[in-house]
Amino acid sequence: MDKFVIGIDFGSLSARAIIVNALTGEILAEKISEFKHQIMYDCLPDGTPLPDKFAIQHPKDYIDALIETVTGVLEISKVDKNDVVAIANDFTTCTLLPVDKDGTPLCFKDEFKNEPHAYAKLWKHHYSQDLADAITKKCKDFNIPSASFGGKVSSEWLIPKVWETLKYSKKTFDATHLFYEAGDYINYYLTGKENHSVCFMGFKGLWSAENGFLPNELLTSLDKGLAGVIGSKISNKIDPVGGCIGCLTEEVAKKLNLTTKTVVATSLIDAHAPIPAIGLCETGNLMLVLGTSTCHIVNSDKPLDIKGICGYAKDSVVPPYYTYEASQPSCGDQFQWFIDNALPKSYFEKATEQGKNVHTYLQELASNLKPGQSGLISIDWFNGNRSILNDANLSALILGLNINTKPEEIYRALIEGTAFGTKMIVDNFNDNGLKIEKITATGGIANKNAMMMQIYADVLNKEIFVSDCALSGAYGSAIYATVAGGIYPDVTTASSFLAKTTGKYYYPNKDNAKIYQKLYTEYKTLYNYFGKGENDVMKRLIEIKNS
Amino acid sequence: MDKFVIGIDFGSLSARAIIVNALTGEILAEKISEFKHQIMYDCLPDGTPLPDKFAIQHPKDYIDALIETVTGVLEISKVDKNDVVAIANDFTTCTLLPVDKDGTPLCFKDEFKNEPHAYAKLWKHHYSQDLADAITKKCKDFNIPSASFGGKVSSEWLIPKVWETLKYSKKTFDATHLFYEAGDYINYYLTGKENHSVCFMGFKGLWSAENGFLPNELLTSLDKGLAGVIGSKISNKIDPVGGCIGCLTEEVAKKLNLTTKTVVATSLIDAHAPIPAIGLCETGNLMLVLGTSTCHIVNSDKPLDIKGICGYAKDSVVPPYYTYEASQPSCGDQFQWFIDNALPKSYFEKATEQGKNVHTYLQELASNLKPGQSGLISIDWFNGNRSILNDANLSALILGLNINTKPEEIYRALIEGTAFGTKMIVDNFNDNGLKIEKITATGGIANKNAMMMQIYADVLNKEIFVSDCALSGAYGSAIYATVAGGIYPDVTTASSFLAKTTGKYYYPNKDNAKIYQKLYTEYKTLYNYFGKGENDVMKRLIEIKNS
Repeated sequence: MDKFVIGIDFGSLSARAIIVNALTGEILAEKISEFKHQIMYDCLPDGTPLPDKFAIQHPKDYIDALIETVTGVLEISKVDKNDVVAIANDFTTCTLLPVDKDGTPLCFKDEFKNEPHAYAKLWKHHYSQDLADAITKKCKDFNIPSASFGGKVSSEWLIPKVWETLKYSKKTFDATHLFYEAGDYINYYLTGKENHSVCFMGFKGLWSAENGFLPNELLTSLDKGLAGVIGSKISNKIDPVGGCIGCLTEEVAKKLNLTTKTVVATSLIDAHAPIPAIGLCETGNLMLVLGTSTCHIVNSDKPLDIKGICGYAKDSVVPPYYTYEASQPSCGDQFQWFIDNALPKSYFEKATEQGKNVHTYLQELASNLKPGQSGLISIDWFNGNRSILNDANLSALILGLNINTKPEEIYRALIEGTAFGTKMIVDNFNDNGLKIEKITATGGIANKNAMMMQIYADVLNKEIFVSDCALSGAYGSAIYATVAGGIYPDVTTASSFLAKTTGKYYYPNKDNAKIYQKLYTEYKTLYNYFGKGENDVMKRLIEIKNS
Repeated sequence: MDKFVIGIDFGSLSARAIIVNALTGEILAEKISEFKHQIMYDCLPDGTPLPDKFAIQHPKDYIDALIETVTGVLEISKVDKNDVVAIANDFTTCTLLPVDKDGTPLCFKDEFKNEPHAYAKLWKHHYSQDLADAITKKCKDFNIPSASFGGKVSSEWLIPKVWETLKYSKKTFDATHLFYEAGDYINYYLTGKENHSVCFMGFKGLWSAENGFLPNELLTSLDKGLAGVIGSKISNKIDPVGGCIGCLTEEVAKKLNLTTKTVVATSLIDAHAPIPAIGLCETGNLMLVLGTSTCHIVNSDKPLDIKGICGYAKDSVVPPYYTYEASQPSCGDQFQWFIDNALPKSYFEKATEQGKNVHTYLQELASNLKPGQSGLISIDWFNGNRSILNDANLSALILGLNINTKPEEIYRALIEGTAFGTKMIVDNFNDNGLKIEKITATGGIANKNAMMMQIYADVLNKEIFVSDCALSGAYGSAIYATVAGGIYPDVTTASSFLAKTTGKYYYPNKDNAKIYQKLYTEYKTLYNYFGKGENDVMKRLIEIKNS
């Protein structure tokens, strides 16, 4: 009898499910569902305006997408529901929503539907950096070991988002039975069981295997209202990766066209799920997940105090390793910004004349440029900086413009800027004892933009393997499902059988690497000047903007 | 009997003549002629490739334009040729061409037509900054007073261009009887008389009323080939402004449909000619000539040692004053760059939908922004910096970009960058004893872009009068012609009768001025950091580009 698993990858705007043969790795079907409300920045569905820096979602979209994609892959693949052993999801994070004691998201209820804090706060919801900074400070006062969270708390994380709810909507806070990471909420919906992924808590919950959550005394000193929040509104039950949360409830099994025998695996962070999918269950092989933003994920066998990364967590992705994460919050995002906001009309016309799409046309022009030929350099902080500096109030710059500067030169400089940003992160790992032996890239953009990958190889002066596993998030989730379903004993074993390891190598061009080394030196000088307090113009400009 | 004069304004791409009633100031006709070869950057007419940083023109275009525009205004106005008392031109400068002993431009001759150095080197021909730097150094060694040329020799000027010809095309140098400023060459063509405008020589010839040209000993120490060049290939006959060079030759009078009674006035720098046209024959009233680039012209009654300006020259525009010039080499140039290279397709579409041209549409959007609202700041060195820093190897930057940055925000930041650059120059005058009492703007862009003029008033925190004299260059030339023709005794008197003094005032908005003061502080910090040696990244990027 064949055995099948379903993996679902929840992104910022849609979810994608696949159904996979758990023994052969064959992907039988794929189904995508867009979130109806997408991301709400400006107002709620009823028109209630949102404060600046809000980025919230409607959790009903998650449930709708879950049902549509799971029933979709079952229907397309014709797999017998009795053969579906397990289901797992990965989710963007920290995406936090409050639910009541019946497990209903508060925003589903009439009394909360016009309350912004009752919705799901997406990872890019940045309302409370001040609260995050206050937590960072208290952690120092309380001598909390900070290595596991990179030394600086982000407004994206769980504790600032919970505190923000208490501070700005006590009614929501009081009505909350549990604050759920959206991935865990999906699993709660599927099984009716309280759960908390070690991966979410280790990276976004200020929780560590060694020290648990922040002490109650610290939280109380921040705000008396936070007293006792751990163990009540924030569950302290932590589930291991590959762990089994429970089986589908009868009600949900019916909705999904599955049975109550299907088990549900612990959720993972979406950017981490590809690790077993592309066979990186080893140490020192850095995975670059290149999308709208970039994640840098790497395993190590030891805990290290590396400043300025997003953090590490033990047993959170590939037990028994410590998995480290760093991040650049803008990659494809800024290339798309460029296409939408800075690519002139004439380029669209010329692309059309040549029967090409504008991306292809632009990439061809940019590919013909040599490193340094444009005289441009850019800093890639279009969404601030998340690793090394961890400062949302930084902005991007383009330097070296002149009257002859061409759009393709700016486009290439923007790509080079992200590559230099990646090199800063790689150097930071190496300099702090986490030796990066290999680099593997995944994500749509890595496969679509060969010029970009060659630039990365040249800038990093290191060969880069680009995995051609197109659905690495959902496929990674499927692999975790096989472990939860008891088909393989652990993630590493499952990966050794199922990983998709085909792809393409990009080798550094020595001449280009030499020029890029010079440009990188310039980038670092500017990075330090603008990022480390010598000239805080970027922050002052934001203050003026907000005043 | 009415008396008429003709003024011709030679720009970088075209010439424009007007015919004016010398007693009433009425402009009877206007005629423009585009230069057939425009500016040659890449190759000669026969395909001979040009080195990088060449910017040359074909002097036949000047003669063709002269004939077309002068005969044009005569034909349109029906003025009797016997009533045309005088003719004058103003010209972009230093635009230098070599002529043989018969007065024929060398590039007209078969043996030189494929020789780049035999053509007219336009002001923006920047081939030999190294030679200019060597001259600056020698001037220090020889204790040459440098105040009149702002302390630093530019590759745009006469002596570097002559030396460049000697160094890279000895054949051209040897065949040259006289090196002519193009404006003086026009006058030579008209009269057959050797001439040299005090305005050209004072600002671009390293000549001063007090000290004459650079000493032969200095020139010889640069290059033995330059021995004796002053007084031979570079005429040391200097003509005063408003002076009479001579009458039209018979041959030329015939071609122009004029008579040999028409006198020809000394030529002026195109950016200086508007001074009497708009009534600025006083001291301390700064004229901003806003076009593709910006000139800052102001009279003073004393010589001052002001570092970093283009220079000053006595009796060069309005005797007996010292006229000072500073310059920003990119103004409209970079706004046009933005439209051509960075304005997205969607903006053209929306402009069309609304039945507007794209400039109007963009200005409307940018007008709705408040100072500081974009969080952007730009440095305006798209063509390098010509005043204060006098460094062609600087480049522009845009800082403060984020994923939500809109094109109109960048456009406004580019305009603000040029305004900050102007404030640097105004502050430099004031700080060095040349008190700027009033500011008057002229040039097409000043009348077309009200938002820009309001930004300038707010940034400078000073009222700005925008002259609506549309043809101020040609009209200024016409005024000089009235003096040469003996209608008025001097420029100031002529201007007092003829100046066009209507226009519009822009008053600073105090709230905006306060925000701009903060942004200007940021601009200055970046200006000094990148421009004064703390971080020479811009120069190193150009080195890498050229290597």
